[in-house]
This record gives sequence, C-alpha cells and structure tokens, in this order.
Amino acid sequence: MTQTIGVGMVGYAFMGRVHSQAWRNVSAFFDLPVTPVMAALAGRSKDKTAAAAARLGWKAAETDWRELVARDDVQIVDICTPGDSHAEIAIAALEAGKHVLCEKPLANTVAEAEAMAEAAAKAAAASGAKSMVAFNYRRVPAIALARRLVADGRLGVIRHVRAQYLQDWIVDPDFPLVWRLQKDKAGSGALGDIGAHIIDTAQFVTGQRLVGVSGLTETFVKERPLAESSEGLGGSRTAEKGPVTVDDAALFIGRMSEGALASFEATRFATGRKNALRIEVNGSLGSLAFDFEAMNELWVDQGEGFTRILVTEPDHPYVGAWWPPGHGLGYEHTFTHEIRDFLEAVATGADPSPSFADGLQVQKVLAAVERSASEESRWTEI
Amino acid sequence: MTQTIGVGMVGYAFMGRVHSQAWRNVSAFFDLPVTPVMAALAGRSKDKTAAAAARLGWKAAETDWRELVARDDVQIVDICTPGDSHAEIAIAALEAGKHVLCEKPLANTVAEAEAMAEAAAKAAAASGAKSMVAFNYRRVPAIALARRLVADGRLGVIRHVRAQYLQDWIVDPDFPLVWRLQKDKAGSGALGDIGAHIIDTAQFVTGQRLVGVSGLTETFVKERPLAESSEGLGGSRTAEKGPVTVDDAALFIGRMSEGALASFEATRFATGRKNALRIEVNGSLGSLAFDFEAMNELWVDQGEGFTRILVTEPDHPYVGAWWPPGHGLGYEHTFTHEIRDFLEAVATGADPSPSFADGLQVQKVLAAVERSASEESRWTEI
Amino acid sequence: MTQTIGVGMVGYAFMGRVHSQAWRNVSAFFDLPVTPVMAALAGRSKDKTAAAAARLGWKAAETDWRELVARDDVQIVDICTPGDSHAEIAIAALEAGKHVLCEKPLANTVAEAEAMAEAAAKAAAASGAKSMVAFNYRRVPAIALARRLVADGRLGVIRHVRAQYLQDWIVDPDFPLVWRLQKDKAGSGALGDIGAHIIDTAQFVTGQRLVGVSGLTETFVKERPLAESSEGLGGSRTAEKGPVTVDDAALFIGRMSEGALASFEATRFATGRKNALRIEVNGSLGSLAFDFEAMNELWVDQGEGFTRILVTEPDHPYVGAWWPPGHGLGYEHTFTHEIRDFLEAVATGADPSPSFADGLQVQKVLAAVERSASEESRWTEI
Amino acid sequence: MTQTIGVGMVGYAFMGRVHSQAWRNVSAFFDLPVTPVMAALAGRSKDKTAAAAARLGWKAAETDWRELVARDDVQIVDICTPGDSHAEIAIAALEAGKHVLCEKPLANTVAEAEAMAEAAAKAAAASGAKSMVAFNYRRVPAIALARRLVADGRLGVIRHVRAQYLQDWIVDPDFPLVWRLQKDKAGSGALGDIGAHIIDTAQFVTGQRLVGVSGLTETFVKERPLAESSEGLGGSRTAEKGPVTVDDAALFIGRMSEGALASFEATRFATGRKNALRIEVNGSLGSLAFDFEAMNELWVDQGEGFTRILVTEPDHPYVGAWWPPGHGLGYEHTFTHEIRDFLEAVATGADPSPSFADGLQVQKVLAAVERSASEESRWTEI
Repeated sequence: MTQTIGVGMVGYAFMGRVHSQAWRNVSAFFDLPVTPVMAALAGRSKDKTAAAAARLGWKAAETDWRELVARDDVQIVDICTPGDSHAEIAIAALEAGKHVLCEKPLANTVAEAEAMAEAAAKAAAASGAKSMVAFNYRRVPAIALARRLVADGRLGVIRHVRAQYLQDWIVDPDFPLVWRLQKDKAGSGALGDIGAHIIDTAQFVTGQRLVGVSGLTETFVKERPLAESSEGLGGSRTAEKGPVTVDDAALFIGRMSEGALASFEATRFATGRKNALRIEVNGSLGSLAFDFEAMNELWVDQGEGFTRILVTEPDHPYVGAWWPPGHGLGYEHTFTHEIRDFLEAVATGADPSPSFADGLQVQKVLAAVERSASEESRWTEI
Repeated sequence: MTQTIGVGMVGYAFMGRVHSQAWRNVSAFFDLPVTPVMAALAGRSKDKTAAAAARLGWKAAETDWRELVARDDVQIVDICTPGDSHAEIAIAALEAGKHVLCEKPLANTVAEAEAMAEAAAKAAAASGAKSMVAFNYRRVPAIALARRLVADGRLGVIRHVRAQYLQDWIVDPDFPLVWRLQKDKAGSGALGDIGAHIIDTAQFVTGQRLVGVSGLTETFVKERPLAESSEGLGGSRTAEKGPVTVDDAALFIGRMSEGALASFEATRFATGRKNALRIEVNGSLGSLAFDFEAMNELWVDQGEGFTRILVTEPDHPYVGAWWPPGHGLGYEHTFTHEIRDFLEAVATGADPSPSFADGLQVQKVLAAVERSASEESRWTEI
Repeated sequence: MTQTIGVGMVGYAFMGRVHSQAWRNVSAFFDLPVTPVMAALAGRSKDKTAAAAARLGWKAAETDWRELVARDDVQIVDICTPGDSHAEIAIAALEAGKHVLCEKPLANTVAEAEAMAEAAAKAAAASGAKSMVAFNYRRVPAIALARRLVADGRLGVIRHVRAQYLQDWIVDPDFPLVWRLQKDKAGSGALGDIGAHIIDTAQFVTGQRLVGVSGLTETFVKERPLAESSEGLGGSRTAEKGPVTVDDAALFIGRMSEGALASFEATRFATGRKNALRIEVNGSLGSLAFDFEAMNELWVDQGEGFTRILVTEPDHPYVGAWWPPGHGLGYEHTFTHEIRDFLEAVATGADPSPSFADGLQVQKVLAAVERSASEESRWTEI
Repeated sequence: MTQTIGVGMVGYAFMGRVHSQAWRNVSAFFDLPVTPVMAALAGRSKDKTAAAAARLGWKAAETDWRELVARDDVQIVDICTPGDSHAEIAIAALEAGKHVLCEKPLANTVAEAEAMAEAAAKAAAASGAKSMVAFNYRRVPAIALARRLVADGRLGVIRHVRAQYLQDWIVDPDFPLVWRLQKDKAGSGALGDIGAHIIDTAQFVTGQRLVGVSGLTETFVKERPLAESSEGLGGSRTAEKGPVTVDDAALFIGRMSEGALASFEATRFATGRKNALRIEVNGSLGSLAFDFEAMNELWVDQGEGFTRILVTEPDHPYVGAWWPPGHGLGYEHTFTHEIRDFLEAVATGADPSPSFADGLQVQKVLAAVERSASEESRWTEI
C-alpha cells in the first residue's frame, strides 16, 4: 500500500491545466513512494472554479486560497497564479507547514523573492516543508541529458552559452493588453516570463551562475487595446487602449562563474518562432544544441559533427517510464517529471531543486538586466 | 450533466497503457457528449491485471475477457491484445451489442478480418453498435492536416506517394523471439505491424486506395533466442533458440486508385531509425512530407520550397484542445484524439472511421504483398 | 616541368559547360602528373561552337566531331552529347587510340553499351587507351566518404539501400518536348537520366551489384508542346504537340549481390524537389544518409543518432585541395574531381573507374527495370 | 569584341587563391562589358610567387607590390594581404589611378580606414577610379535574396537581427600563433576577421546601420606555440610560446538606425561549428534565417512557418548564370559574383558597393565594440 498525499492548487488557467494533467497521471507512469490525491482547487469565481475542478479532476473547489491552504486534506500547495500573488500565497502556505510548488518566476521583485526564500528556509527548519520553483524546462529529457553530459565532462571547459527564447504571439499591435503585459501583475514582460526560463536553463545545464550582465530592453508596441478579460493568452479586446508597461524583448550578454561567455535573448516579437527555447553550449571538447520546438532532440558534437540524439531511449532521463524509442513526449510531460521529482523529494526528505533560493537568484539576474538596461547597458554584477 | 459510458479494455501491455492514458484524460481536454468511465480491465493473470487496473485507473479487473464483455457497466470494448485474438473478442463483443475499438492490424488473416467486418455490419444494423480499428497515426495532427490539404486540392493531382516505416529494435541478432516475431501470434512481421500503418496512412492522406502491388519480403535473422516472456517488446532471453516465422522487412511498389505511383518500405532493421513513420506525397501543385520522429511538423511545398509547419496552432486538427502554439504534443495524444473521435461517433450515431471494412481492406493489401513476395514479386491486384 | 595532354570535347550544352569548368580549373587545385590543355571543342553549328569555345576556354572549334577525334593535339576525347551519339563517337575515338571520358548513361541501349565496352577493352589492350563513364556523383566528397565508411566496415552487414532521385522540372504539362523526353535521343526518361545515377551511386557506396529487380514506370503527361529547340532543358514551345516517348517516373525494388534489399525511385514529377539525389544505407552496425540538395553533408549513425558530418575537412575525399573547413563546395566540383581522377589514371596507367564495363552493367539494370515494368513487374534478373 | 582590363593581385594565400578562381572564371559565366586579364601577381618570395602565378593563372609575377601597381597592363589592383598593409597598398594604387578591390576588414584601425576612404573619394573624383571592399558574403545568392525580400517590404518593420559567426579552428590550445592571432598584423581577432562579416551582412540585409553597441571580448587561450610560418591558417609550431594579442571571441548587443535590436557573436571557440555565419531577421510581417554551412538555403517565414528556399532558381540573384535548379554553388562563387559586380561597376562607371566608406563604417563599429568591451560594456555610439 502506498501512502497518499493531498494536493491543493491555486489557479486553473494555462498553468493550472497543465499542472492538473501532471498530478492526474504521474502515478500511472512513475513508481513513487506517495500517491498524490487531487484534493482541492482554488479560484476566485465560484462557478468557474467548480467547473474547472470537475473537468480537471479536483475533488473540491474553494474560492479563497486561504481556505485551500487551511484544509487538512492538503499537504502540498501548488501555486499557478500570476506573479503578483506568489509571495503572499507561498509564505502563508509555508507558515502553515505545507509543501509548496510555485510557478516561475518566483516573484515579481527581488524583495518578494527574498521574503519567499527566507520563508522557505524557515519552514524547512521548522516543519520540514519542501519548496520548489517550477522551472519545468529542466525536466525536458533532452535538457536533463544535456546537464548530464556537461556534468560528466563530455564538453570539457565551457566557453560559450547562447540562449534564446523566441515567441511571436504579440507581434500584432492589436493583440490585447492581457495581464502578462502589465507590470503590476507580471513584474516584467518577455524578460521575466521567458527570459527567466533561459536563465535557469543555461545555469542548470552548465552548472555555472551568471555573475554579471549588460542588457537592453525594448517595448516595440507602447499601447494596446484593453482586453475584455485580463486572464487569458489572448481573446477579445475593447475599443479603448492602455499602455504596455513591460518589455516586449530583452537582450543581454554576460559572464558566468567559471569563465563562460553568455548571450541571451527573450522576445515575443520573433515572427514565425512559436516557442523556440533554444540553447547552445560550446566547450573545449564538444558542444550541444537544443530547440524546444523539436523537444525530443538533443544535438551533441564530440568532434565529428552534431549528432541528433532522439531523446527517447529508456536510459535517457525520465524516458524509461513512458513509451518505446522514437515515440516522443510533449510539452506537458515536463510538468509530470517536475511533479514526480517534487513528490520524490517530499516523500524522501530530500531538497527539491530548483529551490526558492535558486528562484531568488534568477530574480536577481532579471533585476540586474533591468537595471543595466535602464543605465545605458552598463555592466551590472549579480 | 453529461451522460457517461462504460469502457472495458482487454490487454494492458504497451497498447493497453497508452489507451488507458487516453481514456483517463480525454474528457479533461475535449468537450464530449459522453464521459467515459473506465469500468473494467481484462487480463489473464489475476494479480497482474489487478495491479495494472489500479495503476492505470480501471475500477475493476477481470481475468476472462468474456466476463468483461458481459458486464452491464461496459458499453465499449477496447481490444489491445495481439492480433490472434482480435476476431474472437471483437465478434463476441459486437454480438453482445457492445461498441468495439480494436487495435490494428484488424486481424491476422483476411478471413478473420472478413468475419469481423461482417459482424460489425450486422451489429451496426441490429443494435447500432459502432466499431473502429485503431490506426492511431491518422490522429497525429500533422497527418490530419495533410489529409485536409490534399482533400482541399492544395496539392493538385497526386502523382507519387512514398511511405516508409523504419525501426531498428531487432537489429541485434540476440534480441529475443517475442510474440511479434511469431506468425501464429502476430500474423506477419514488419509488414503487418508497421507496414499496416503506412498503408492506412497513405490511403487516408491521399484519399486513394492501393489497387495493385509488387512486393519483396525478407527475414534477415532466421533464428533467435527464446524470450523468457513472450509479452513484451524485449526483455530477457533463454539459451535456446527458435525460428523467426515472420518478415523482418517488407518492400513494395504499387498503383493507387486515381493513378498515383506508390512506394512502401517497412523494416525493423533500419539502424538509427527509431520510429520513423514517413510519408511524402507529390502532386501537380504541391507536395507534403512527414516523419513521426518529428511529429509536430508537417512540411508543405506550394512552389517556393518546403515550409515547416509547426502543427501546434489552435486551428490545426485536434490542437485547439491542448496548449499554446509551439508547445508540442507526444505519441500518446494520437490515442486521445482517436478515442475522442470514437466517443463522438458513439454519442452522435455517426460512423467512426477507419471502420472494420477499412481494416479489412488494409488486410487485403497485406495479403497481396505477401502473395506477390512469394510469387517472384509478380503484380498482384487488390 | 609537368607534361601536358590535349583534350577535345564534343558538345557544349549543360554538360559541356560544366566539363569545361572542370578542365579549366583542375590544375589550379590538384597536383597532377599531367596538365590538360583545352585543345578543341566540337559542335554542329560553326558560329555557336566558336562562341562557346571562346567563352569556355577552348583553343579551337570544330563542326565535325570526326575532325576533333583526328586532331593530333587531342589525346583525350570528352563526350558531352545526348546518348544516341555516344557509341559512335566513343568507338571512333577509342579506335583512334584516344582516351575517352563519356557522359552517362553510357548508351541508349544495352547493345550499344556492349559495343562500347568491347571497344574500350580492345583499345586498352591495343593502345593503352583509358575510358571512363562520367557518373559524377561518385565524386561528391560526401558520397566518396560514404563509400569509404562502408568499405571500412563501419556499417557492418548492409541490410537496406533506399535511393531516390527526385526532380520536378516537367511537372507543368506545358513544358516542351525537349530531347530528354524523346526515346530516340535519350533512350529513356527519368530512368536513364537520373535513375542511372542512383543505380551507380547505390552500387558504388555499398560495393554490391543489383542482381534482380521488379519495376514500374509511368508517363503522366503523354503529349507536350513541341520545343522550338530540342537542345535545352526548357525554353520556348510551339503550338503543335507531340508524344512523350519516355517515362516520367520509374520505381523499382530489388536485391543486391550480398543480400541487401533495395528500393529505387526516379522521377521528374516530385514537386518541390529540385535535384534530390538521396541515398540511405542501413547496416547491422550503422547507417548513412545523403541528399544532394545539401551536398556538403553526410549523415552517419553509429548507434547514438545521426551525425551531420560537414564534409569539408582536409582529410575528407578531395576536400584538402579546396578551402578551409565549413567552406562548402558546389555541383561543378564533382566534375573537377572526376577529371582529376581520370587524368591521374591516364598519367599513371591505372584503370579509371567507373569503367565502360561498369556503365554497361548499369545499362543492364536499366533494361531489366524496363522489361519488368513492361511485363507486370515480374522479377527480372540482371 | 569585348574590351579587356588588366588585373594585378597582391597576395596569394587563402584569399589570393579564391580571388584567382573568380578572376579566372567570371567571364565564362557572366556576360560582362569587359573581360579581365590576369596580368600580374605580387608576393614577397620570388620563387613562391612565380609558382603561385603559374598555378593560379597569372601571366607575370612581381616581388614588390609597388611594381605591380605601376604596371601599364594593370588597371585593377586586388589586395589580398593581411590588414596591416591594406592602407598603404590601396592608397598608392588609388593615387596611381587604379581601381582597387580590397579584402576585409578594410584596415586595422579607424584612422587607416579613414585615410583609405578619403583616398578613394579623391581618386574617384580625380580619375574615376573605383574602389570596393570585399565583403563577399553579400554575394551569397541566399543573402542577396534576403536583402531583396527586406527591401521589398516582405518582412515589414524589422524588430530583431541576431547574427553569429561561429568557428572552432583554434579550440586546441596548441594551435600555433599565426598572424591572425597577432594584433599588429590582424588588427583584432574574431571581431575583425569574422565579426566584420556579420556586421556588414546584418547592415546589408536590413538596410539599417548599427548606431550603438555594448560589447564583451575574451581571449580564452592567452599564450600559444609560435608558428613556423606566420602565413597560413595552421601548420607547424615551435616549442616556444608567445602571447595571443587579439580576442578569441566577441559578443555585443546593439540598436540599429530604424529601431531594430541586434545581437552579435563572433567566436573561434564554438566547437563543432566550422563556418557558421548565421543571421536571423524578424520583422512585423515575416522572418528570415540563414546559415552559411547550408549556403544554398534561405529560410523565410511569412506567417505559416519557415520555408526552406533552395536558392538555386534562375531568378534568384546571380544563379541564372550557373546550373539548373538544385545544383548548388559553393564558397568560391561568392567571389566570382563579387568580381562580376566590381567589373560591371568599373565598366559602366557605377559606384561599386560596399564602398571604402562602407568599410570605414564597419571599422567604426569594430572600434566601438572594442571600446565598450574595455570600458565595462558601457553603451558606445557609432
């Protein structure tokens, strides 16, 4: 008999849907010391939350996240809301002794992230509560394999990292002013939303931290029609316009802790690129390259040319739990892997990774890029 | 309130696992007139079946498929066993007035397939029972989009189809003699297992049927170590050897009903190709190309060069139910789509496709290839 | 001081232009024991031939190829005419003791090819004259490297060859009836023109000969406007129409001398494919794949996935003579390599390859495909 | 009768070899108002220069470039020496009324480049002498096509340019200290050698100039074995070591004159990348992408996905002069195109492009990157 553990989730939009898929299926594929029970879902609207809970497989619905945090049948709180509420919910949950999985970026400001990291450390000491920030791309099997190759020294001394996260969903100037384009909700634009992912990915794969950056940001479209609903990734717009208060694109170059040079670009204006999280790493013995638009492939050079490794073999990270070779995985599987690792840590008492402290460090890089960009790209240490 | 419908599944190996994933999740993504309830799972071993049922989400377990067919809470029977038992189970289920979803190839012989198609027709008339053969690759969004482009005339008159299904899982002569390498269980080798998929895919995409073929088959490794268990895709082997009684590879060329030339190749000896179901179609106005190893991409030429369409847009087939653009799907989603379409047909009274008659036609092509191959590749009409 | 050798070329259309480029430049890149002197060019029209000679770098012009063959300053005769004149010119040149390089296919019929091979053998014995058929694709560095890998055993036992030569230049039914579409001039259509190349390439790379085939051919467009000039690859057309007397496409499957299965397709109706000479070889230890549309790349699998080898390293075949790594070569270089090898053989007394006997063998394969296609695809031995 | 024009070239190493190939063949492919005559080659060593002249097709050899400039049969001076001698030779040639084609980067310093641009302007006014800097990559057909698409507005407002020039030829720390690694000879390292190419390419394709940059440079390997000969791209090394005085890699971000954001990276430490000159441009209506390692391809997005255009059609820039579709060109052809355009300008009195003034502007960008890199990446205007 496996033990069960109750999960409560806050938010049921894009991130909530994909987290639900992971909670619902993780036990069918991975042998875990605990089985998650999808206890309750919290959202603001009673009807919508109840409908979402029914559809996504949550047993109960709450309209106040505080109620969800307080439930006896909830031991894990999974935060899938916009960044402006992360700190408040996470800190409350940690103080209540709950384990916390929080979507990225950890917070909208360094101050909030610091408070969260502090709360996480305190809760870990007090109640053994675990906390983790949801940089799901670490759990793409190809990215995890990339990390393994670098850690094993297969690339030698790392010289270069170049990472891009290219999307195009707001190229149209009539795309509405959704919450992700508002600084008070989202903290920043492309920088925090997708730039955060490539910062984490680059640091994870290389095992090096960014130590200084020089950056540029730009808002190409300064005003947009107001959205009828601020919640979605698009949808209807009104005749009225409002100011875009976040960056459309952010570029920066930097140095990493063991001497690698790094180049980053995050943009929502790369027409034709849909979700191109790309990273290339060059070392003294070899190189690797990845593009999420072909997420089951890792390209590795060891001197003869780049080999396209189809990362679907049983000995590749996470893959053994799924299908035979050549039967690829999709976007949602990265969350299943993340939740598998989180549950494993919760059950065994290990520290899940990336921690809130890791999330804070990424937040500091984001802040450094913004500061550099606002001060004529001057070099800014982290 | 949605109506529910009870499902019983026979078999819980590779196909059973992936069908379970589809049954478990289809309602969370698609708005369906009925909600499937995973009523019961049948398998031979009591313990293993019970464990599989618990893990995969089935409410009950049966050790006799006849019991499963007879259950009042089962309206749909989903057959995930090797081909030698398809006919018996399917015919029994149809006679009991159950809807039937059957894995491919429909049967191991034309005679069995004919009996099944007849039973399906009779049951449809008698009880309105629906039946469908599980050529899941039709439900790859890129393949469904390919069909749409051809049907819309975007490629003009079709001149060429070239289709390959390349795998390499038995290149090693010490790979054991699993059931898929035994004629009595599997009917044929690469031909029926993966050749059937490209026959169906080519006919589906072009809307043309194969009318004649000239073929070659070969068994490169004539003897293999016996497997400890005949069930899996690999696993332990014994010291004893036995004869491989199916083809390792099958090649054939043919003509299609509206004049296209066709070339097919199915092999388990294409080292480095893991699950390369590939199809290219050339028409008088354009062409398309697909490889399942990059399943979220369809390549389309309309005169300027091949365009890589990332088939992840909301208006692409099935995709709107899932994630934003660029967030790809995986192998298992093809089954979710298949089950979505089957449930839709069951609920609305439409005829699901591909029907057992379609499965029979593919069986006739397989038989024609085998006959041609055994008679010096002579032209064989279908 | 290097010795010089005089060259005379017959024909100055597409093949003549590219051969001229090779003769003009070979000595600037390769260290050769002889330096070719571009002595004379023969063509039917006096003015056009003189203009072509001036432009392409030939010292003299002749309007009768017999005069060219007879010239004292011509030791090598290079035949770049349509296939119907190959036999006559080549045999005359060989009888005159000249070395002969002849464009492919060697001839329009097996009988002609036999006569040529016989003349070549006789001349070799009598005068030491060398002869070679111009299958230039053997001299693509990537193809030569592929051959080396197979010969070195890197792929193990060869199981599969699949080769395609896909073009689309006559998809338009109003494309005129140029000489390549007339059986009396060209011998056959796609089969002899481009099918011959993939037959030679497949045999060269694997080191195996085709021993039997089953084929299909088709002429999709039966009538076309007459061309104003029969010479070119396109050009103006008249209002009158004439019958297309060659195949538009040819498909065949076959067996090779050491047990590999082979699949071939040659077509001029593959919309969007411009010059896609493709070959894939699967062996028990590895695989390789090539597409001439990316001619500087060879894809090689040795168990981990396909490696894209950029065939531009100094130790790759022919490459050391050219540019630094990554600075790719083009189509014409294959002819420069061919002529380098021919000159080397002429100067050292070695036998150039592919010989006229090799050309004859390819001719026999072409004839076998045609025979099989005309007799309901029945198996035809070579 | 075409007029002829005499050419004298200085230097016969890598660049001299490829320029020779272009001079030798340009008239066989392009209809030009003048025919170049390869009059004389200058080099320091008498024997080596004479041998090179014989091999490469130059009628005479000189050991003093001043003699070459002074020759009556030389109207065009082509400078293929390292950057430290460009200014002196070019200015002397221009003052002698000769047309000048000069390899890139134009000079080793802004001051030299300014003197050269001034001399070019003065000579143009005085004698009608033409001058051009040899940014050959502009003449890759795919790059020229990219420029045409942007100029035609097909991409809309340009938002992003990301350009990389990745090589790996000095990853080995024992690679010798050739002239390209010495500041006094080469001016700078990766920055001036290959960074200059992507600056020119990015500005050419977008039609925008860089207006400000923030940069980073690094020398990963600070000391290397002395080379036996400083001339080549590699070769033997001695036991002694010397300091590397140029950058191994340079990264910078910047803004362009019409608002695009730009990201650049030039490195000789990108293991596995041989000559990856890459550029991607994103506009409000579409995007394009190019990689010189696949130089015959241009990828263009116009909303549906990236189309691989095989840039081998007769209506693509420069291509009509060469081979049928799908028969690709190589590295050297970019020089043939460059010389074609230069000869056309010389003959018709048009101003060739890129001019020395364009070369000076690139030099200023290089200087700005170096200055920024030396002052903590601060923003530096151009």
